[in-house]
Amino acid sequence: MALRLATSGGVLAAAQRIAGQVTRTPLLPVTIRGVRMWAKAECLQEGGSFKLRGATNRLLQLSADERARGVVAFSSGNHAQGVAIAAQRLGIIATIVMPADAPEVKRAATRAAGAAIVDYDRWSESREAIAGALARERGATLVPSFDDVDIIEGQGTAGVEIGEQLAHAPDRVLVCCGGGGLSAGIALALPQAEIVAVEPAGWDDMGRSLIAGTPVPVADDAPPTACDALQTRLVSPLTLQPLIEQGARAVSVTEDEVEAAMRFAFRELRLVVEPGGAVALAAALAGRAGSLSERSVILLSGGNVDPAFFAGVLRRA
Amino acid sequence: MALRLATSGGVLAAAQRIAGQVTRTPLLPVTIRGVRMWAKAECLQEGGSFKLRGATNRLLQLSADERARGVVAFSSGNHAQGVAIAAQRLGIIATIVMPADAPEVKRAATRAAGAAIVDYDRWSESREAIAGALARERGATLVPSFDDVDIIEGQGTAGVEIGEQLAHAPDRVLVCCGGGGLSAGIALALPQAEIVAVEPAGWDDMGRSLIAGTPVPVADDAPPTACDALQTRLVSPLTLQPLIEQGARAVSVTEDEVEAAMRFAFRELRLVVEPGGAVALAAALAGRAGSLSERSVILLSGGNVDPAFFAGVLRRA
Repeated sequence: MALRLATSGGVLAAAQRIAGQVTRTPLLPVTIRGVRMWAKAECLQEGGSFKLRGATNRLLQLSADERARGVVAFSSGNHAQGVAIAAQRLGIIATIVMPADAPEVKRAATRAAGAAIVDYDRWSESREAIAGALARERGATLVPSFDDVDIIEGQGTAGVEIGEQLAHAPDRVLVCCGGGGLSAGIALALPQAEIVAVEPAGWDDMGRSLIAGTPVPVADDAPPTACDALQTRLVSPLTLQPLIEQGARAVSVTEDEVEAAMRFAFRELRLVVEPGGAVALAAALAGRAGSLSERSVILLSGGNVDPAFFAGVLRRA
Repeated sequence: MALRLATSGGVLAAAQRIAGQVTRTPLLPVTIRGVRMWAKAECLQEGGSFKLRGATNRLLQLSADERARGVVAFSSGNHAQGVAIAAQRLGIIATIVMPADAPEVKRAATRAAGAAIVDYDRWSESREAIAGALARERGATLVPSFDDVDIIEGQGTAGVEIGEQLAHAPDRVLVCCGGGGLSAGIALALPQAEIVAVEPAGWDDMGRSLIAGTPVPVADDAPPTACDALQTRLVSPLTLQPLIEQGARAVSVTEDEVEAAMRFAFRELRLVVEPGGAVALAAALAGRAGSLSERSVILLSGGNVDPAFFAGVLRRA
């Protein structure tokens, strides 16, 4: 059976499908290293990240029977909230498998949106296996966080908005990259733009995969990172393929660069950006993303961060 | 000579004049006490507050000769940044009289926008006198922070955007109130809405003035407040009049309520809001603003706050 792939047309259809269900996030001017460019503030999306886009696009396409049997997802927190909010609006019961060490702010918000949380140990258990077993038991639908055509096309609607909001076609878009759903979706939405996928140092599965032309996992000894949203060990062929076709490249940033980006966003944009949501900005600030212009766009992909951690980042200035 | 007053038509003309020069800030959904309503995120305006609106509207109307002689303003920081940015864009030299104890983040940003800063002591010197003398010496134009028709009409453009962004006419708009420029401008922009001007406890010059029907200053022993942007001792007849005509009312919030609102904006909206920019949200959260609905709007008027202070607020949760 041929693999169904995400398409540009699918992204446009998703944009029509979810219009009015998600916030049209602002494209804010930002000056970096003397150049005025643009930041797409997906941290202002409901649920605090772009994840509501894909989840809404996916859940709107479930049949009445599928809706009645509920949905199951696994996520460190942002996809959890996206699925929980989308499900709540549609009257669907949602169960989310979350790592026990996920930021409390993400766990609390997921619960607040009415979802049930099932814990797992990030280091010894397989969330895929736990979620899969739950879904089978209940006849529920598993909603993957990136390895899914409808999810990718839903995330791409952020790129559709960028195309509408920017006066000129964007030349380069820097995207925070975990499993690559947002990066792939935006590549499909903005076929003329160069996509730069940005990862935390050591969590460079997209970087390795783009070089190899096939999914390659991160090293076994990937270092600790504050970017909980981007701790993906292996991208999907579904997210890799559109990025390869578009000639995308990937860069990595350090933990210090991420914290500096969070402080920059606080001071210059008055936005709360979580570590994983700040990597693209970090790459721009550190000059790691090549030459940028008034047609360049930086994704700020999420803003769910524990207050004590954020306070610590501010104080380490 | 009859006093020239700000008008609804003037606000609409200002909106046309400054279009493209200011950010169209988002109207974000927010759920408070179980009710979904809207937050107008003026903290995302360039310069970190709504002040760029009035400053741009004022400076665009200066003649070439006036522009060549420069502008002078006095401000604790947000108006300073608004004037500095607007002046820099138009190639106008700006001098800003700022209190020596203004937040460093506001002083640094004002300098970064190319303005010269002249310090004064908030408690022993008159900023009006210092700025007036500077303006006379140089033949420069004094740009008041609220006691000016063009400034009021410029600030009102935030209200024009609210009217365009909200599906229904707003029933109630909660506005952070210092001198009343934003409150008056929004009253003129949205004549059908009830305006609730929100002040820090003890800094209730608008509250006293609305009751008296004429400007009444705050008490001599007004308490310390973190709301540096709202430490106005006396409103202007220019800002008071439109609010009286519209039947506006004023409420006050405590310092603790302001800090709780800043934490709420951090957690639920992923926005950095300064104390003075959070008073309207504080009133809504504390239930001090009457019944609110899906047609109610809360202004988040600014987000310039020192990181150490913000970190302290987060840690006092």
